[in-house]
Amino acid sequence: MKKNIVVGQSGGPTAVINASVAGVYSAARRAGIAKIYGMEHGIQGFLQEELLDLDEYLQDGMGVEILKRTPSAFLGTCRFKMPVIEGNEELYEKVFQIMEKYEIEAMFYIGGNDSMDTIKMLSDYAGETGKPQKFIGIPKTVDNDLPVTDHCPGYGSAAKYIATTVKEVICDNGSFGLDKPSVCVVEIMGRHAGWLTAAAALSVGEDCEGPGAIYLPEKVFDIGKFIADMKEVGETRRAAVIAVSEGIKLADGRFVCELGESAQQTDVFGHRQLSGCGAVLSGIIAKELGYKTRAIEFSTVQRSATHLASLTDIEEAFMAGSDAVRAAEEGKTGVMVTLVRDSKFPYHCKTGTYDIHEIANREKCVPEEWINERGTFVTQDFIDYARPLILGELMPYMVNGVPRHLVRKKS
Amino acid sequence: MKKNIVVGQSGGPTAVINASVAGVYSAARRAGIAKIYGMEHGIQGFLQEELLDLDEYLQDGMGVEILKRTPSAFLGTCRFKMPVIEGNEELYEKVFQIMEKYEIEAMFYIGGNDSMDTIKMLSDYAGETGKPQKFIGIPKTVDNDLPVTDHCPGYGSAAKYIATTVKEVICDNGSFGLDKPSVCVVEIMGRHAGWLTAAAALSVGEDCEGPGAIYLPEKVFDIGKFIADMKEVGETRRAAVIAVSEGIKLADGRFVCELGESAQQTDVFGHRQLSGCGAVLSGIIAKELGYKTRAIEFSTVQRSATHLASLTDIEEAFMAGSDAVRAAEEGKTGVMVTLVRDSKFPYHCKTGTYDIHEIANREKCVPEEWINERGTFVTQDFIDYARPLILGELMPYMVNGVPRHLVRKKS
Repeated sequence: MKKNIVVGQSGGPTAVINASVAGVYSAARRAGIAKIYGMEHGIQGFLQEELLDLDEYLQDGMGVEILKRTPSAFLGTCRFKMPVIEGNEELYEKVFQIMEKYEIEAMFYIGGNDSMDTIKMLSDYAGETGKPQKFIGIPKTVDNDLPVTDHCPGYGSAAKYIATTVKEVICDNGSFGLDKPSVCVVEIMGRHAGWLTAAAALSVGEDCEGPGAIYLPEKVFDIGKFIADMKEVGETRRAAVIAVSEGIKLADGRFVCELGESAQQTDVFGHRQLSGCGAVLSGIIAKELGYKTRAIEFSTVQRSATHLASLTDIEEAFMAGSDAVRAAEEGKTGVMVTLVRDSKFPYHCKTGTYDIHEIANREKCVPEEWINERGTFVTQDFIDYARPLILGELMPYMVNGVPRHLVRKKS
Repeated sequence: MKKNIVVGQSGGPTAVINASVAGVYSAARRAGIAKIYGMEHGIQGFLQEELLDLDEYLQDGMGVEILKRTPSAFLGTCRFKMPVIEGNEELYEKVFQIMEKYEIEAMFYIGGNDSMDTIKMLSDYAGETGKPQKFIGIPKTVDNDLPVTDHCPGYGSAAKYIATTVKEVICDNGSFGLDKPSVCVVEIMGRHAGWLTAAAALSVGEDCEGPGAIYLPEKVFDIGKFIADMKEVGETRRAAVIAVSEGIKLADGRFVCELGESAQQTDVFGHRQLSGCGAVLSGIIAKELGYKTRAIEFSTVQRSATHLASLTDIEEAFMAGSDAVRAAEEGKTGVMVTLVRDSKFPYHCKTGTYDIHEIANREKCVPEEWINERGTFVTQDFIDYARPLILGELMPYMVNGVPRHLVRKKS
C-alpha cells in the first residue's frame, strides 16, 4: 500500500478503543502511508464523507500518548449494520466510490460482533465485484464475547475497573457493625456473556474475600435458589457484596430485570420508571430475608474508566491496530486480527488473523466448566485466564486534578 | 501525655478517613505514647471494649503507607449518638471506666456532624465531673458540610472521583451520532449540601465542556423550569451529561426522589422497587421531550474510590490526625481540628482547633453566591475554592492488578 487508508470505530465504546486507532496510525505512519483518515461515527459518517486527517491530531508524539489515555470513541461511533447486498448495491457502490475519491486502499474497522459484520459484507462485495480495496477488522468489546480471539481488547480494562471497584465497595459495605445482615448487589454489564461479571472474582486476594456470590447469564437464574444462597451468605458473612450480570434470565426465558416491569407504573407525572436486575434482586432480598440491601449499577462508567485502564489491555489494543496495518500490507482482506495466547505462564500474547466469516455475528460465552456447580462463582481456570489481562497501569496525564483527554475539533 | 490513647472512626466512610488514623498513629508514636488503641466500630464498639493495638498493624512503615491507600473505615465505623447526659450517667461513666482501665488519656474521634456531637457530650461530661481525659474531634465527611473548617478531609477525594468520572462519562455519552438529543443524568451524594454535586463542574477544561447543568439542594427545584432547561441543553449540545444532587427538593418540601414513589408499586413477587432522583428526572426528560436518557448513580463508589484519591486530601487528612495529637498534648479538649486556608494562591492549608460546641450538629451549605442565578451551575468562586483540593495523586500499591488494602484480622 502506498496511498491512503481509513480507520473507524463502531459499537459501544471501551476504555482502550482509542489505543487501537493509535496503533493503526503509528504503524501506517511508519509504513509510509500518505494520508491516514479517520471516519467520524463509523461507517455511517463515512457514507456522509465525514472524514478527518489524523495527522492533525497525532503528528506530534504527545497526541498518540494522550489518545491512548482517552476513553470512549475519539472518532465517534455508530450502530449501523450494512444491509444485505442484493437490492442494496447502490449503498455498497457508494462506499467504494468514496474510497476511490479519497484514494483509500484499506479500511480498518474497530468493533464487536455487529461491526465485524460490516467488514464481512464489504469484503464480500469487493470479492464479488473484483474491487482491490482491503477490509480488516480489529476486535473491541468490553463484553469479551468475540469468538476465535483469546480475548478482546477493552475487556481487560473493564475487568480491572470492576475488580478494583468491587474491592473498594466490599471495604465500604463491611465497615459498619450490623444488627442484621447486609447485601449489596452490584449489577454489571453483559447481556448474554458473563465475562465482565465474572471479573468481580478478581477482587479476591489475601486482603479481600471477594463477592459473596456471582451470577452469570450462562446459567439459568432461579429466584428460590437465589434466596437460599443469600440466606447462607447473610449467615456466614453478615455483610456481603454480590455481583450479578444485567443479562441473567429465568428458566422461562424472561430477564430478571423484566420482573420489575409490573412495578414500572408511572410516577405522579405519568413518567415511566425503570429499574435493573440489581434493584429487583435487592428488593427480593429485603422482602424475603429482611436484610439491609443496596443496589449499585456500574453503568457506562465501567467501560469508560480509562484512568484505571489495564496496561496489558492498552498495549494489546495498540498491537491489534498496528498488526492490522501489517496484515493489509501483506495483502490480507476479509479478516479480523485476533489475540493468540502463545504462553500461559508467563503470559504472552501475539496476534493472528482469522477469516471474518467465522467471527461476525457469533458470540463466545464463559465456558460451563469455568462456573462452579452451584452457579454462584467462577473457578480458578477463569482467574488464570483473566488475571494477566488486568495487570499493569498507564498513568493518565493529570491536568488540574483530572485526566487530560484528546478530543475532536468541533466541525 | 505519657500513657495511652484511643482513636475511632464514625459515620459514613471516606476514601481518606484511614489517613487520619495513620496521622494520629504516627504523631503519637513519635510523641512516645505507650499504647495506641483503635476502637472497632467507633464508640459503639468501645463500649463493648472492642479495642485493638495499632502497633500490630502499623509498626513497620509499610503498614502506615498501605493504610493511607485503604478505603472505608479500617477500624470499622458506626452510627451511634450519645444520649443526653441526664438520666444516662451510667453510660457516660462506662466510657470513663474503660478509659481508666486501659489507661487512656485522650480519645480521638474521626467523623462528621453526628460524630462531633459525641466529642462534645464526652468532653462536657468530663468537664462537669472533673475528669482529666481529653477528647479531640478530627473532621471527616465526603459531604464537606462541617462548619468553621475551610473544608473537610474526604471531600477532595470524592470530588476528584466525581470530576474524573463525569469527564469520562461525558466522553462516552457524546460518542454516538444522534438522531435525537441525549441526556445522561448523574445522581451524586449530598442530602442537604451540594458540595459533591458541584464538583462535577471540575470536569470543565480545554478538553471538556463539562456538565450541561448542575442542580444543588441549596436551590428549590422546579420541574417546569427543569424541562425548559433540558430543552435548551438538548438543542445546544445534542448529547449532555447533567449532575443532580440526591437531595434536590421541590418548593413544597418533597424530595424529587419521592416523586418516584407512586411508581414504587411492587413487582410480580410483591417486592418493593426504589429509584433515585436521577431515574425520576431521566424519566421526565424522556416523557416530556422524547430524548434518549440514561440515569447513573455514583452510589457508595464515590466515597470509597481510594485508587483515585487526591494527594492533597490524603496529606491533609493525615495532618488533621497528627495535629489532633499535638492539640491533646497541649492540653486541649472539647475541640475539633480545623483546616485553615492561609493562602489562596498558591494554595496552602494549616490546621487550627475550634470549640466543638460551635461545630457539632451544624451544617455548612454551598453559599448562595457560588450558584448562578438560574440555579443551573456553580460560579468561578466555587472552582477556585475546590480545585486545589483535588490536586495530586498517590499511586495505590497494585498487587495482581488491583490495589492492596490493609484489613483487620478476623476476631
